[in-house]
Amino acid sequence: MRRVYVVGVGVSRVNRRFSDSLRSLFAEAALKAIDDAGNPRIDAVVAANMMSSRLQEQDSLASLLADAIGLRGRMGFKVESACGSGGSAIVAGYSLVASGLADVVLVGGVEKMSDYPTRTVTRALAQAADAEYELFYGASFAGLNALVTRMYMEKYNVKREVMAEWPVLMHENGRANPYAQLRFKVSVEDVLKSPIIAEPIRLLDCSPLGDGAAAIILAGEEYARRLSDTPVEIAGLWQATDCLDIASREDPVGVKAARIACEKAYKMAGVEAGDVDVVELHDAFTIMGLLSLEELGFAGRGEAAKLVADGRFRVGDKPQVNLSGGLKARGHPVGATGVYQAAEIVMQLRGDFPGLKASNAEVGVAENIGGTGASVSVVVFRR
Amino acid sequence: MRRVYVVGVGVSRVNRRFSDSLRSLFAEAALKAIDDAGNPRIDAVVAANMMSSRLQEQDSLASLLADAIGLRGRMGFKVESACGSGGSAIVAGYSLVASGLADVVLVGGVEKMSDYPTRTVTRALAQAADAEYELFYGASFAGLNALVTRMYMEKYNVKREVMAEWPVLMHENGRANPYAQLRFKVSVEDVLKSPIIAEPIRLLDCSPLGDGAAAIILAGEEYARRLSDTPVEIAGLWQATDCLDIASREDPVGVKAARIACEKAYKMAGVEAGDVDVVELHDAFTIMGLLSLEELGFAGRGEAAKLVADGRFRVGDKPQVNLSGGLKARGHPVGATGVYQAAEIVMQLRGDFPGLKASNAEVGVAENIGGTGASVSVVVFRR
Repeated sequence: MRRVYVVGVGVSRVNRRFSDSLRSLFAEAALKAIDDAGNPRIDAVVAANMMSSRLQEQDSLASLLADAIGLRGRMGFKVESACGSGGSAIVAGYSLVASGLADVVLVGGVEKMSDYPTRTVTRALAQAADAEYELFYGASFAGLNALVTRMYMEKYNVKREVMAEWPVLMHENGRANPYAQLRFKVSVEDVLKSPIIAEPIRLLDCSPLGDGAAAIILAGEEYARRLSDTPVEIAGLWQATDCLDIASREDPVGVKAARIACEKAYKMAGVEAGDVDVVELHDAFTIMGLLSLEELGFAGRGEAAKLVADGRFRVGDKPQVNLSGGLKARGHPVGATGVYQAAEIVMQLRGDFPGLKASNAEVGVAENIGGTGASVSVVVFRR
Repeated sequence: MRRVYVVGVGVSRVNRRFSDSLRSLFAEAALKAIDDAGNPRIDAVVAANMMSSRLQEQDSLASLLADAIGLRGRMGFKVESACGSGGSAIVAGYSLVASGLADVVLVGGVEKMSDYPTRTVTRALAQAADAEYELFYGASFAGLNALVTRMYMEKYNVKREVMAEWPVLMHENGRANPYAQLRFKVSVEDVLKSPIIAEPIRLLDCSPLGDGAAAIILAGEEYARRLSDTPVEIAGLWQATDCLDIASREDPVGVKAARIACEKAYKMAGVEAGDVDVVELHDAFTIMGLLSLEELGFAGRGEAAKLVADGRFRVGDKPQVNLSGGLKARGHPVGATGVYQAAEIVMQLRGDFPGLKASNAEVGVAENIGGTGASVSVVVFRR
């Protein structure tokens, strides 16, 4: 298979971007990435987005976004896997380059939520769950994550206050990241006293609503060195699905699709969990961050929160996790999140991430979850 | 590049399928295709759909559909290019196999519209156009096609009654197709007397609203002969975008993205327009059928309607066009349409299409348009 490299990245600050449209937000990140790659000819645009159909009443999104950056006439389509759209788009973009259909591909994610009432956005987000088996019965997306959290706490005897260490660490990391939406410290007490969203999930366990766009440029091996002094290889990747509804899962207290995607991606890259230096994983809620640590092989079952409380996963550790602040503090512009993660890992491996810098970063991993685990992608990057 | 073959196809009858859900409709077509391919192990599911986010309030669609046919844990994501989603999904599925990431991929499209008021569906369909530059000003999707129709008639001096020959031919063809939604004859007079939808477009110029699902199984060359006695090669394919809004097009009376996709796909397959035996093209409205004939190289500018009236494009001619009845009579289950077209061409090349059969079919082409030309895919098949 033809080797594929990331030769450019661009991200916009996650925030409530009321004065930006889908087009302008996407263009900001995409043009940065194209510039970072030395302005190559782009053969294809793979767009990642979850909610434009519901919120902006706009489909045919890839055509719209490609046109917004002057790329009419190129290949372009949108990829959707709910909150996991970004990672799936990277898989699609990778295969366009690996197959030889395209030489240089822009994978760009964008999401805009701030213009709508929270109730509208919450309902749109819930479309990541099963409309007939879950939402019909009144479940919200936070409510479903609360069920998993409660089962996790009971099954592994994990204390609520220990789990609060996760958002504390994320806010600590996010403070240094100029692209992060939330850049303030919080304490365990702050987390435990923040408003209840869906018991036992509290406000500070939840990633914030925000707008954002991120883009990466993928290129075939012959083009990589020509376009970048510091190309980062995609050494392995996979994406796997599971049923949407939690009740039908083999084990509701886990993310099996993450395990499958991880095994395949690690094998393809020839790495093991112990080889990974830096990780961006999908902590839309505290529970998803902890389960991701466990499914990716960085913590035993039920042990992730304890390890976080013990001071693990900081700069200098192996692996160093969510130095961006994660979804919790960098923010979670849904369909764009997987592309943010990829861009951040690439910057860590190149040494030019503008926030907390990883030490000795050779191998990086990005993990992006759709729904409560219905779709998970894992991408392994190597310097 | 690894060669890719279609080793199985399955389609459901397009109709108002009130008693089917997205899941059951998809499963009907997908299981037929899997059976047709001898029940191979499927590595990935690429789902094509436009409107589930808006109408069924359901995202994460590929995970849902893969689960519906017992394929949890496999790769799976949705591809969207409005009405061109099916063709784009084939491109994505093709590249997964051509790259070697997957050996056997199911590409399946599904769309359900009948459960909703026509007004709701019409608004959802209009999301294929530009929400900010077109829909905001009150344009409907039929209205935009009407503008193009009027410009076409004036630019090339084409008479309304000559254009009516297209739906007449489509209804004639569709009568023999057991999967077609509309199976009755119409006359030129019927077309010209049918209700005005958006002057000069009349009801019988429009593809009907209906539900449907179609699936094809793609396999790498080493697997093709093992899985099928009659594998059909995808000899070339491409997909191209244009701006969404007609007013910004280089030439509003044409589909430039079709021309680009066609040139690339023909070149990749090593064929010319004159080599093509059988075609399924995207006649969502009469104008799009005629423009497609011209952009694919089967008619000169402004000449397509005249050729249809002269008796061209029937069985025995070269090429034989829309023997399924096309979007006009087979129906247009939006996100699934591109997959229907591919399945129909494959059946024509294998000789087992259950409707009008093409004669001497060696090379076939499927063309699928998104919006008024914002995304077009062209796939060349060879027996």
